[in-house]
Amino acid sequence: MKIICSRENLLLGVNTVQRAVATKNTMPILQGIKLKTENSSLWFEATDLEIGVRCKIPMEVKEEGEVVLPAKLFSEFVRKLPDSDIIMESIDNNVAIYYNNSNFVINGYNPEEYPEIAYINSAETIEIPAAVFKKMIRQTIFACAVEETRPVFTGILVEVENENMSLVSTDSHRLAYSKVILPNNEKNFKGIIPSKTMQELLRLLDDDEILTVQYNNSKIIFKFNSCQILTRLIDGQFPNYQQVIPQSCNTKLLVNCKNLLDTVERASLLSRDNYLKINNVRFNIEDSILNVNQYSEMGKISEKIEIEKEGENVAISFNAKYIIDVLRTIDTENIVLEASGSYSPCVFRPENEQNYLYLLLPLRN
Amino acid sequence: MKIICSRENLLLGVNTVQRAVATKNTMPILQGIKLKTENSSLWFEATDLEIGVRCKIPMEVKEEGEVVLPAKLFSEFVRKLPDSDIIMESIDNNVAIYYNNSNFVINGYNPEEYPEIAYINSAETIEIPAAVFKKMIRQTIFACAVEETRPVFTGILVEVENENMSLVSTDSHRLAYSKVILPNNEKNFKGIIPSKTMQELLRLLDDDEILTVQYNNSKIIFKFNSCQILTRLIDGQFPNYQQVIPQSCNTKLLVNCKNLLDTVERASLLSRDNYLKINNVRFNIEDSILNVNQYSEMGKISEKIEIEKEGENVAISFNAKYIIDVLRTIDTENIVLEASGSYSPCVFRPENEQNYLYLLLPLRN
Repeated sequence: MKIICSRENLLLGVNTVQRAVATKNTMPILQGIKLKTENSSLWFEATDLEIGVRCKIPMEVKEEGEVVLPAKLFSEFVRKLPDSDIIMESIDNNVAIYYNNSNFVINGYNPEEYPEIAYINSAETIEIPAAVFKKMIRQTIFACAVEETRPVFTGILVEVENENMSLVSTDSHRLAYSKVILPNNEKNFKGIIPSKTMQELLRLLDDDEILTVQYNNSKIIFKFNSCQILTRLIDGQFPNYQQVIPQSCNTKLLVNCKNLLDTVERASLLSRDNYLKINNVRFNIEDSILNVNQYSEMGKISEKIEIEKEGENVAISFNAKYIIDVLRTIDTENIVLEASGSYSPCVFRPENEQNYLYLLLPLRN
Repeated sequence: MKIICSRENLLLGVNTVQRAVATKNTMPILQGIKLKTENSSLWFEATDLEIGVRCKIPMEVKEEGEVVLPAKLFSEFVRKLPDSDIIMESIDNNVAIYYNNSNFVINGYNPEEYPEIAYINSAETIEIPAAVFKKMIRQTIFACAVEETRPVFTGILVEVENENMSLVSTDSHRLAYSKVILPNNEKNFKGIIPSKTMQELLRLLDDDEILTVQYNNSKIIFKFNSCQILTRLIDGQFPNYQQVIPQSCNTKLLVNCKNLLDTVERASLLSRDNYLKINNVRFNIEDSILNVNQYSEMGKISEKIEIEKEGENVAISFNAKYIIDVLRTIDTENIVLEASGSYSPCVFRPENEQNYLYLLLPLRN
């Protein structure tokens, strides 16, 4: 392999694939980035066997070839390169990098031992505007479970049925649901995508791109610009979320999103250091006022927020963190909150937007 | 105590004193910030008994008084306050804070138990332009020892003798020395100031201010704007640094600062993961070239930098970190490097600047 390139192009490739490099894996070669020429381009590739990311950067290729370089050393070195012409030349498994009057050799891995990322080229293709998909990811990803005791909860369920696409996530305490219309789509897909993959899509996708999705029963590949992200789908049965979404309510509020967020954030300061690690916040809804009255050994808070209310008065407690998460995501001025007594699931919706809802179980206290 | 104020003013006070709050101290009250009215102002005060910071912010005072509030809760709460008028009123040791239609009570400490910071009002006063002092701190603070086995190495020696002021720091491997002329000064001072205090001065001083320094045998106070930083001086004998600074050299180089920094940073990538935790970099100075040729199990580097040289050729090794530290501080285009063989201390100076030098012991390898 022999290529001529710029620091900027090397950095672009490294930054794109870097998060897919394995951080804790028993196969040392997975801590590497694979570089492979193809005509007048260089492919950058990394995988931890769960997610694979690759991207293609145009470069002057003098000799075809491939190498696998340790990601940490290679990326730090690229950051410290001068802005001059750079020549990279492989010597067995290693690479010599020439710049100014100097050269740096990085000892690499045997590229034949690097696992092949089995890219799929299925005929099943769905196209989604990137800005739409990114918004849906942001609206749902925070409700994924972090702990891996139940794998299906660590991903986002994506369902496409002709023109309807929905994303759903839950950690069993709360559920986020976002849907959209995909005009003219006739394809169907259902699969649970790991949240790490979704996070990478958020990071790498530009709003004005079109995302192309290809898939089979166990894998999905996202293509955009010169990048490809391949990921396995999470095995298992996603809970039947439709049946837990309440179809009616006894109390319905309209409340200013920012006021509610500020109040909950202040209230949560008082309970933050307690042993349960749960920041309990209690809403007392009385006529046109949402009251928060709480105390701990640190102090106390008493706040009132004006609301519009239909239905019964109610007192209801939540984990403050779960409310803060959704209020930071919603971008409408007001939200609608639907409750049915103190112990039934509560629904949060952006005002006048039917495409999103957030279901939250109250705390019993 | 009863005051009317804005979020902005509370935040200014809290941010100024916050770093002086004790983080690990057996006296819980030292985790507090003391607030005390004085005429139409509120004093904010914090101390960990080593350093004390206080600042005075103008406010509308309705009733005189003082309180001590837990710093973490108070500062986080202030950050989350709305931009409306705020009333703070003490109730015994606690404070009720009123905003919009709401209120928040923070349980405080008994202010009578808060240690008095014994501010000194000595007649001995030195005035220093803040920009000058900040530059000198930046040029020396990185060479202070982090470990506290020898306390004198954890501070910066400040010496004022009439119109001459110097700052010196050393961790026994290297020494940084900066001097300046203080026109018309007739006062003398010599003391070792903890690096934490110097760090706070860097953070809080604005370049266009004049710093007023008052002192006695064991303490020093820095006054600027509406702030005061009081600190004890570090006890002990600072090494006689004058006698270790070489008066002559066998090799003298002129080298571009950025080129040398880039080369050393790249070379240090190769040795970073070794067991000694020392990034060895070796300069081979031959005629008009500074060569760096190194290898490790990760790879190898070969670089050449053009230099101007007087005197003998020499090969000399350093801890790369100690070179990176000084090269990041020096702001001239070129530096002068003075060596005398492979094992004698080496001197780094900014080109054409007689007010700064950095002395570095070579590694023996």
